Amino acid sequence: MASAAKAAVEAVQDGVKKLAVKEGSTNVLERRLFFIPSFKIYGSVAGFYDFGPPGCAIKQNVTQLWRQHFILEESMLEVECPAVTPEAVLKASGHVDRFTDFMVTDAKTGDCHRADHLLKAALEALLEDPKAGLMPEKKSEAEDVLARIDELDGPGLGAALTKYGVKAPETKNDISAPFPFNLMFKTSIGPKGDTVGYLRPETAQGIFVNFKDLLYYNGGKLPFAAAQIGQSYRNEISPRAGLLRVREFTQAEIEHFVNPDDKDHPKFASVQDVTPLLFSCALQTNEAKRPEAMSLGDAVAQKIIANQTLAYFIGRTYLFLVGIGIASERLRFRQHLPNEMAHYAEDCWDAEVECSYGWVECVGLADRSAYDLRAHSAASKTPLEAYEKFAEPRYEQVLVAKPNKAAIGKQFKKEGKPLQESLDALTQEDAACIKKSFDEGKPATVSAGGRDFEVTPALLDIKQEEQKLSGRKFTPSVIEPSFGIGRIIYCMFEHAYYARESNEDKSVFRFKAAVAPLKAAVFPLVQQPELNATARSISAALTRAGLANTVDTTGTTIGKRYARTDELGVPYDITVDRTTIDGDGSVTLRERDTTAQVRVHQDAVAELVQQLVTGAVTWQMVLDTHPAQQPAAEDNT
Amino acid sequence: MASAAKAAVEAVQDGVKKLAVKEGSTNVLERRLFFIPSFKIYGSVAGFYDFGPPGCAIKQNVTQLWRQHFILEESMLEVECPAVTPEAVLKASGHVDRFTDFMVTDAKTGDCHRADHLLKAALEALLEDPKAGLMPEKKSEAEDVLARIDELDGPGLGAALTKYGVKAPETKNDISAPFPFNLMFKTSIGPKGDTVGYLRPETAQGIFVNFKDLLYYNGGKLPFAAAQIGQSYRNEISPRAGLLRVREFTQAEIEHFVNPDDKDHPKFASVQDVTPLLFSCALQTNEAKRPEAMSLGDAVAQKIIANQTLAYFIGRTYLFLVGIGIASERLRFRQHLPNEMAHYAEDCWDAEVECSYGWVECVGLADRSAYDLRAHSAASKTPLEAYEKFAEPRYEQVLVAKPNKAAIGKQFKKEGKPLQESLDALTQEDAACIKKSFDEGKPATVSAGGRDFEVTPALLDIKQEEQKLSGRKFTPSVIEPSFGIGRIIYCMFEHAYYARESNEDKSVFRFKAAVAPLKAAVFPLVQQPELNATARSISAALTRAGLANTVDTTGTTIGKRYARTDELGVPYDITVDRTTIDGDGSVTLRERDTTAQVRVHQDAVAELVQQLVTGAVTWQMVLDTHPAQQPAAEDNT
Repeated sequence: MASAAKAAVEAVQDGVKKLAVKEGSTNVLERRLFFIPSFKIYGSVAGFYDFGPPGCAIKQNVTQLWRQHFILEESMLEVECPAVTPEAVLKASGHVDRFTDFMVTDAKTGDCHRADHLLKAALEALLEDPKAGLMPEKKSEAEDVLARIDELDGPGLGAALTKYGVKAPETKNDISAPFPFNLMFKTSIGPKGDTVGYLRPETAQGIFVNFKDLLYYNGGKLPFAAAQIGQSYRNEISPRAGLLRVREFTQAEIEHFVNPDDKDHPKFASVQDVTPLLFSCALQTNEAKRPEAMSLGDAVAQKIIANQTLAYFIGRTYLFLVGIGIASERLRFRQHLPNEMAHYAEDCWDAEVECSYGWVECVGLADRSAYDLRAHSAASKTPLEAYEKFAEPRYEQVLVAKPNKAAIGKQFKKEGKPLQESLDALTQEDAACIKKSFDEGKPATVSAGGRDFEVTPALLDIKQEEQKLSGRKFTPSVIEPSFGIGRIIYCMFEHAYYARESNEDKSVFRFKAAVAPLKAAVFPLVQQPELNATARSISAALTRAGLANTVDTTGTTIGKRYARTDELGVPYDITVDRTTIDGDGSVTLRERDTTAQVRVHQDAVAELVQQLVTGAVTWQMVLDTHPAQQPAAEDNT
Repeated sequence: MASAAKAAVEAVQDGVKKLAVKEGSTNVLERRLFFIPSFKIYGSVAGFYDFGPPGCAIKQNVTQLWRQHFILEESMLEVECPAVTPEAVLKASGHVDRFTDFMVTDAKTGDCHRADHLLKAALEALLEDPKAGLMPEKKSEAEDVLARIDELDGPGLGAALTKYGVKAPETKNDISAPFPFNLMFKTSIGPKGDTVGYLRPETAQGIFVNFKDLLYYNGGKLPFAAAQIGQSYRNEISPRAGLLRVREFTQAEIEHFVNPDDKDHPKFASVQDVTPLLFSCALQTNEAKRPEAMSLGDAVAQKIIANQTLAYFIGRTYLFLVGIGIASERLRFRQHLPNEMAHYAEDCWDAEVECSYGWVECVGLADRSAYDLRAHSAASKTPLEAYEKFAEPRYEQVLVAKPNKAAIGKQFKKEGKPLQESLDALTQEDAACIKKSFDEGKPATVSAGGRDFEVTPALLDIKQEEQKLSGRKFTPSVIEPSFGIGRIIYCMFEHAYYARESNEDKSVFRFKAAVAPLKAAVFPLVQQPELNATARSISAALTRAGLANTVDTTGTTIGKRYARTDELGVPYDITVDRTTIDGDGSVTLRERDTTAQVRVHQDAVAELVQQLVTGAVTWQMVLDTHPAQQPAAEDNT
């Protein structure tokens, strides 16, 4: 087969497989209440999901693992701030003015649509339509617009929508020109109704506004990191794609504050050999457009990643994601292209995970420089700075300006007061400017109190002096890893899902034990009081060991009960039978993915499961040291 | 001393002590960032608090212990639902119409005040004012109004405010008549602005709307409990009292669904000997007005607590609160008086904890009967019922009504259709009514399709028949324990706080190890690279053991470093000195409350601390088996 044809067939096979995973996993995920549309009995509202019992347990496990991996391991300062946020905070951060998507409305129905989504769908349809018969140059023009959609502003989107004659979906009515729609949920704080508040669109701002206190708490020392896990809110125009685009979601964000002159990380050596797929700007813009595996040590040495701290967090993120069950070959770190990045950002990388929806941004890692602290400092008029003591004192030439108070008073009387204040607060730049005029023998013009003053050396003495500096104040840079917990969990679901080879109707989630919603299920083989009692006492022992578990005393066949727990991704099933009561006291312990079974004494099984869950022993070690149990026929049907 | 005078002196001493605890703890809590007003650099907004690093860690520990104590132990179904909630849900629950406080406004400034707060303050001032010279009957009248404030409706509050001439505080302006103010934060969902949403005022509703799915998940079986931990929101009119009355707070709520005919609990025996202070209706209304300790077994037997399930949760709540550090003698369960309870509630008890603000409601435990499920079932038109299979089939007399279709068609032609439909859907009550008329030889009148029909036995055959019933559908009752996590934590802070007897400037929190924000701190005695390195490696071993810890390498005196960690309630301090490096390899391990110190080998100390934290060994055991270290003088200064 020609390689192009082979690639095409493989792509189709791959597509079919992904669709099967999506359909199979979605079926199980909804039926077993991993997550479900919220407020279902009231017809639901787009963009809101509930986590049901297994989903909620998994989310708890993932956030606790995150806390252990990042906060505990790095001694980060965790904070918890309200979601309701007064306008001043989000005005300063830029969200009130700029946290918008462009919207168009249906001219007849008034229905709202995202402008970029409509344009994208229209261009994709045009390019795929064999009847469109596009000329090569028109085709390449359309492809170019499609590639640059994210860069278009309102007028740009409007022009493109007009050019390609885009109509409202379904109704095919005309659409309005695009206009910005702020994505924040607005509310009012207090009874008077005059204090505007918003639901925070990200958790990060709560950390920035506390920077001063947190620095003090840390003994005034940099670097340090603060973290927050909590709900964020975005009033999406038309949410879709399940858990991937929702209106309320859990974020876990870290703000690592660092001296802008020293972004090395003391623990970088621990991740320098981690080798994720990196999709740098260069690789995105070359011919092949493929990410490449590269060690983080090399990526920093070759200046592909801007600094050690950013690379350190890329490494820790990789280890976290793979640790909770994201397939490493379906995880890549994509660098932002220069036109994607905010002007103040130094370098940004997204952890993207492949699932049936394509490559999904799950974590953003950005070196945001001093932007956020400067913005809040200016708006709140509160210095948000750190102090660096120099190892050796430094000597610097500074201009010292001394206004002659008496002369100013004499010359300008009362009106001299604003001038006096202005001269007292001269910056080095202003002083240099005035000194230049004086050196040229000219007076300088100084604006103060709404008028101009002519200032001569008689009114202001300016001298250059050497000053000893033992340290300096500066605004720290911040490196921000920001995790979307729901997206990560959804991708993990897809990566963990498979159908048994022996029976494609049997769905399994191969969750890591630490992530699994229940660590074990206990079954009496048949419904007998003695077996039930033993099952309950094993369950109690598991609970004492801190292992979430369930007892299934329905009389259903053991095969069906195994299938039920496989669907929940329960790693270990324990079956109590007559041998447990009348024989050697052993129970059956079955592992989910191999479906292999061994006999273990009932008094030892809870501790053994605990060791398996913590990784102290492996399933192979258990197989090697315990007698095997032949599975009953029904387990394989 | 006469006993009355003695009691008065004791009351004053008690008051002074409480004030000292409040001031001391508030000072440390704010200075060490346990919690701080939110958005401080923007001037803050009343009713919003951030948890800083130690507070956030404690809150995490408390919620994880809650999860372990309730959810894991009882195999509850945990769910997580959005805070943003569409209006229909909260209309059905009654919150849109009735979740209000009465507000008055200042006639000149427009400032808002809670009507009951103003009335309470005015009456208290009046009763305490020696110059008021109230007649005994006026005094008792004012006392009576004060005691019944919570029962007053809008007009009642208005009349009392007028009667006592209450003015606006501070300005002393006239106030408006009281009017209801809804405490929910309102927002708008989606871009069109036509979908009203609110921030949930409690987490419970998310469980009720999922009842059908959760029952299915539980195999259709009762009883079962679902739980949710999450943020709730109340737009308080004038929040005060720190963490006790805030606008955004964490709730942990349980809804235990149960057959209304059987509210026994299978695990009741495990709590029947728990003996909390119970403040029943009878004790609240008798002369002494004091709670009494009573075993839960007795309380149920004497019908003081309505049923075993409610008593079981009172017992579990007691064990939880005492387990995290609430003093048992400052914890009471107060029964709601009949006029406090909603009409549908069967029995309600509040867990109240005494702190410097008085007795504070921290947990509400209510048997809410079938109210919530019935309300959502009616509003959503979705049956929210469970099915009970009878142990033995039951036989019941039922009326079977068979309309004579042909006769109806003949008599009423087309217009008979609504009558036919109406007769097909007759309830047992309606059928009995019609049968009564027939038995009396009269026709019955049936309304259908907007008109009345005269129905005779020729049109409708009604017979009494015996039916075999193998089970029944019913709406479950719900027993709801609802925890305010912030209030519990605040009270725990006060109960844990003390000043060292040796030095009253030294504040300590005697947090339980499981609750403490950090389990250990590691100090190099002096600033030397070797000591620092050893301290870091001990810290890493603690982290591997899952124990949050910190390293303090500041050169400050060891006494000051002990004082710093005492303020954070860190139970164990580890000091590395020259003996660790040059001598026997031991470090100093110091316990917070005894301040006693022992020498432990550096390689064993992390595991020993872990055993202390989990309770596997006690501090006394450590004292008995390890050589003592005499504290340096500075530790006691």
